[in-house]
Amino acid sequence: MSTTNSRRRAIGLLLRKSDGVTDALTFSFICIGPILNEAYVQSAIEGHGESPKEPFSWFDLAMSSNEWCSSIVGILTDVNHYLEGEDEVLAHRARQLLHREIEFTHHVSLPCVVVELKMNTNYINLAKIVHAFASAGTLSQHFWVKIPLEFADEDESWINEGDDASVPEESSWMVWNRFRSLCNHEPKIFPTLALSVNLPNETIIRRWMGEQVKCIYISPQCFISNSKGYPVMNKRHQLVVKQFMELGAQAIFDPKGLDSSANLTPYHQYIDFIQCSPFDPDIFGRDEYSGIQYTSGYEDYLQCPLQPLQDNLESHTYEVFEKDPVKYELYTDAVHAALLDMVPDEEKESRIITLMVVGAGRGPLVRSSFRAAKRADRRIKVYAIEKNTNAANTLLHLNEREWCGEVTVVNVDMRDWKAPEKADIIVSELLGSFGDNELSPECLDGAQKFLKAGGVMIPQSYDSYIAPVMSSKLYTEVRKMRDLFKNMYSNFETPYVVHMKTRYTIDTPKLVFSFVHPKEDINETNERYTVLNFRSQEECIVHGFGGYFECKLYGDIIMSILPSSFSKGMFSWFPIFFPLRDPIDIGKGQNIKAHFWRCASKSSVWYEWTISSPRSVAIHNPNGRSYTISKV
Amino acid sequence: MSTTNSRRRAIGLLLRKSDGVTDALTFSFICIGPILNEAYVQSAIEGHGESPKEPFSWFDLAMSSNEWCSSIVGILTDVNHYLEGEDEVLAHRARQLLHREIEFTHHVSLPCVVVELKMNTNYINLAKIVHAFASAGTLSQHFWVKIPLEFADEDESWINEGDDASVPEESSWMVWNRFRSLCNHEPKIFPTLALSVNLPNETIIRRWMGEQVKCIYISPQCFISNSKGYPVMNKRHQLVVKQFMELGAQAIFDPKGLDSSANLTPYHQYIDFIQCSPFDPDIFGRDEYSGIQYTSGYEDYLQCPLQPLQDNLESHTYEVFEKDPVKYELYTDAVHAALLDMVPDEEKESRIITLMVVGAGRGPLVRSSFRAAKRADRRIKVYAIEKNTNAANTLLHLNEREWCGEVTVVNVDMRDWKAPEKADIIVSELLGSFGDNELSPECLDGAQKFLKAGGVMIPQSYDSYIAPVMSSKLYTEVRKMRDLFKNMYSNFETPYVVHMKTRYTIDTPKLVFSFVHPKEDINETNERYTVLNFRSQEECIVHGFGGYFECKLYGDIIMSILPSSFSKGMFSWFPIFFPLRDPIDIGKGQNIKAHFWRCASKSSVWYEWTISSPRSVAIHNPNGRSYTISKV
Repeated sequence: MSTTNSRRRAIGLLLRKSDGVTDALTFSFICIGPILNEAYVQSAIEGHGESPKEPFSWFDLAMSSNEWCSSIVGILTDVNHYLEGEDEVLAHRARQLLHREIEFTHHVSLPCVVVELKMNTNYINLAKIVHAFASAGTLSQHFWVKIPLEFADEDESWINEGDDASVPEESSWMVWNRFRSLCNHEPKIFPTLALSVNLPNETIIRRWMGEQVKCIYISPQCFISNSKGYPVMNKRHQLVVKQFMELGAQAIFDPKGLDSSANLTPYHQYIDFIQCSPFDPDIFGRDEYSGIQYTSGYEDYLQCPLQPLQDNLESHTYEVFEKDPVKYELYTDAVHAALLDMVPDEEKESRIITLMVVGAGRGPLVRSSFRAAKRADRRIKVYAIEKNTNAANTLLHLNEREWCGEVTVVNVDMRDWKAPEKADIIVSELLGSFGDNELSPECLDGAQKFLKAGGVMIPQSYDSYIAPVMSSKLYTEVRKMRDLFKNMYSNFETPYVVHMKTRYTIDTPKLVFSFVHPKEDINETNERYTVLNFRSQEECIVHGFGGYFECKLYGDIIMSILPSSFSKGMFSWFPIFFPLRDPIDIGKGQNIKAHFWRCASKSSVWYEWTISSPRSVAIHNPNGRSYTISKV
Repeated sequence: MSTTNSRRRAIGLLLRKSDGVTDALTFSFICIGPILNEAYVQSAIEGHGESPKEPFSWFDLAMSSNEWCSSIVGILTDVNHYLEGEDEVLAHRARQLLHREIEFTHHVSLPCVVVELKMNTNYINLAKIVHAFASAGTLSQHFWVKIPLEFADEDESWINEGDDASVPEESSWMVWNRFRSLCNHEPKIFPTLALSVNLPNETIIRRWMGEQVKCIYISPQCFISNSKGYPVMNKRHQLVVKQFMELGAQAIFDPKGLDSSANLTPYHQYIDFIQCSPFDPDIFGRDEYSGIQYTSGYEDYLQCPLQPLQDNLESHTYEVFEKDPVKYELYTDAVHAALLDMVPDEEKESRIITLMVVGAGRGPLVRSSFRAAKRADRRIKVYAIEKNTNAANTLLHLNEREWCGEVTVVNVDMRDWKAPEKADIIVSELLGSFGDNELSPECLDGAQKFLKAGGVMIPQSYDSYIAPVMSSKLYTEVRKMRDLFKNMYSNFETPYVVHMKTRYTIDTPKLVFSFVHPKEDINETNERYTVLNFRSQEECIVHGFGGYFECKLYGDIIMSILPSSFSKGMFSWFPIFFPLRDPIDIGKGQNIKAHFWRCASKSSVWYEWTISSPRSVAIHNPNGRSYTISKV
């Protein structure tokens, strides 16, 4: 089976000891258990476990190591009854059995083993053992925790036999959450879901989309017969299977209830058909970036936000952003509208608009401005201001080759420029994923001094938004980013630019900060503080906040990465993610109170953030200790 | 060009500003310079460098980023005359020029830039700039330091114009070594060698094999014409080119002296022909492992030595070692010879030899022993002692399936076993790359108590050897292994198992430690201390010591990874490498005095090592603080 994010997922077969292996070969892998011989387990529980005279498990020479590690998933023996029982002697033997079993799976290099959780059951000793193995740094093996998509009355196999109550006390997600919290959210432990015959409501399904579901188990009971007698699924089951596979889950067909002679191929083919079908994959959670060529491969991949003010962008970075098919069209429209508003038809020959592109890069906004002027039939005089000397070299080449020497190229920081005249229009593209996070406000404050009274700045304003997010994937990725050279929390006190795919957005985004250009009073501060309240529909965990911007370029021309007003097809920005150091449990219907600050010193700008309800946690990034955006 | 270790190396073309680009397209990449426009350099040195009105370098939009970063290597402008001159104003302008030039190469993402060194010249300010860029953690660009394979009278282009003496004061390697020492041996700085018309002696060439030579420049002067008028090389030039390309160097054809209309294709084809030819690649330094399928891909790859006593081996590790085509044949021969020595022909029916395999793993020595007994026509009774419970499971399966229940499988540590009888022959395979480093002496001390008086142990003895080694590649690899959880020196105080490919063996290996089994006095210590003296033929650097073993299995049956007695075709062991924390400069003909200790406590065994001449350095791994081999 594959642990990478390739498009086509493996489909496996679940085998119980007594099943035949008919048809197994058409599947990519086999999930089989228990791993220990039954007789051995019996004898070990009775106290005869040491120095066995018979083999206690599989014959490793039956297959090559490559075959073991690419085609077998093992299911652990269920000894929970002893493990959590009152008899300490039996509990000790059960612990030893599980240790021996897991060590055997290391011996044959199984890439993952399955532990199954039932409802209303105590799993604390199982968690202790799984946590001990999963947190050992040297082992690469994964644990797959098997649990139903939701506990349901009709499916009694998930109900613990010892328990009288048949009504679930907690949802299956809560059982999983309890188990993995005991295991310190270890990155090697993943939920795997048995598809239920009756599907739960959409919020419950969407909540699972915030987890890294590695596998879904599909039984014959999830199928119906079509008119030709072939097994098929109803629309809703299809969508659920499709969506989990899109998010990286593999599938395991569990032939429970079928005869051992049954033909499994139609089931296998149908599951493969679902994953290859071009269904709308976003039914359970929109993905604004799906289908855009340049964004694939970036799913859930953390990037540190660019700091174009501090660091010169490289040529290939300009190259990628210049390819955006939407952004520069919007800018052309904005300049076009501004020129028409500013110059009445009768002045189109006599009046020359002085237009300055500040932060011109390799010239895409110069090009948009010329295009807008031509379309509007207005005359413009263009300045291109760029602090990056290497990009200025490109602008000088372009001015010779493409712009007939008409552009005045100035290699200077816009904040330091002594302009020879004032501008009617100042155009810039200084926004980051969170709007102001690349210091557009500070830079444009510097440029405003060479804007004429009554002149226009494009963009005219921008707003940033946040929404609380559950994503065990992003949490795991942030956890991996430990930075040796900063403080012990620095990876959790840094925002990341990321295409958030594996996520559950707990509530809709709300406005955090706003900026308007030109400012009425240039001395007005760019610091901000905002409190926001969100509400969770179901129990969940907050791992952090997704951040977005919406920008008014000019008049009614909007450029946005906010889901509700997203500029379709634009790929220049992924959202930003502000992590929280500890995952915070949220109850059903509970309020989440978030606080965001934008702070500034002489040399830098930074954000601080926290939540104060349902409980208060430490304010993140105090005094910019982990992350600042340099002004100099 | 490729920076990976793939078999076929790229061949590039060197272009000077004035050269045409005829034929350039048949080459994989182009090496071109200088990067800054000449007029700009002139004007900047005169003090008019800021805010140029003309482009100062190449037009980046002329190619895509992909093309820039895969097909262009830039050569820096030579401003050394100003950089090291007395005029501080000019030196400052030269520094700024080099900064601007290197920053431009980052802008267009050049994977590497070339700096050229001449002899008898001061490069300290160039080193300062290169070091500052190369040590910046965020940059991935490499620096290629261009220097001739050896300075030679006939090739005056390498002699600094300002210098009167035409006799080299130092070899080209020493110029390189001086430069990279100033640059703190930064891993991103590599030597690249211009092939000289007159080749230096073999030791000089072999010394370069200890460096990571990334590229060789080949000029038309290195070719001769064959009878058909085609350019070819003499045998020695061919071998040198072949050997450097085998070690990972790319080639750059430098058409200096040819007309701009000359046809370069025959030169290109000939260089490609050399690298594809099946010459003996080991002419300048033997590689015992070349041609063995299982060892390819492991060149210069550091592995932590196994600790089979502390950690159970996994099934796939047994699987790999069981495939050795030589080792088990040698064991079969050894058991065969011992059986014949022990049992005269007339007793072959009546006498049953008790043979115990201690550390039986998945049974290969059991199989060798049965094969030897059959071939010798002698009767044996076999015990298989194995502490790893998972391997014992395999032995139990094998005993049922292959050995008709004839083997007594015991799952116990040999040191704790209460044997029901004593053995005539005890067979083991407990050796590591350095002989005793997997604690064979300690384990066999435990087994000796169940050996009959006059019984035989196979192996009967083993010796370990070391040799001083120069390898900037291994030094760089060790430097990367920083272990966060131990002390700041731990990566340099740990031996590594490694197929040493990029290396210069400074002197032949010498005996360090010896062990004999059975011991005459079981209480004799396994601790050791040895002093060794080596001599260097040429100036060089010691980066550490290569370690080997030679083992007497029985009588004259030798199993060895020592180069002089290597068991050809055997791949179970690569050598071991003991690093030194600081590279130590060694003069021509100087003595290297090395000290090695084998130390033991109740719970572990470890090595300490150092050198005391030509200078004393700290004893490595005191008290086993960085690396121990656990006995428990």
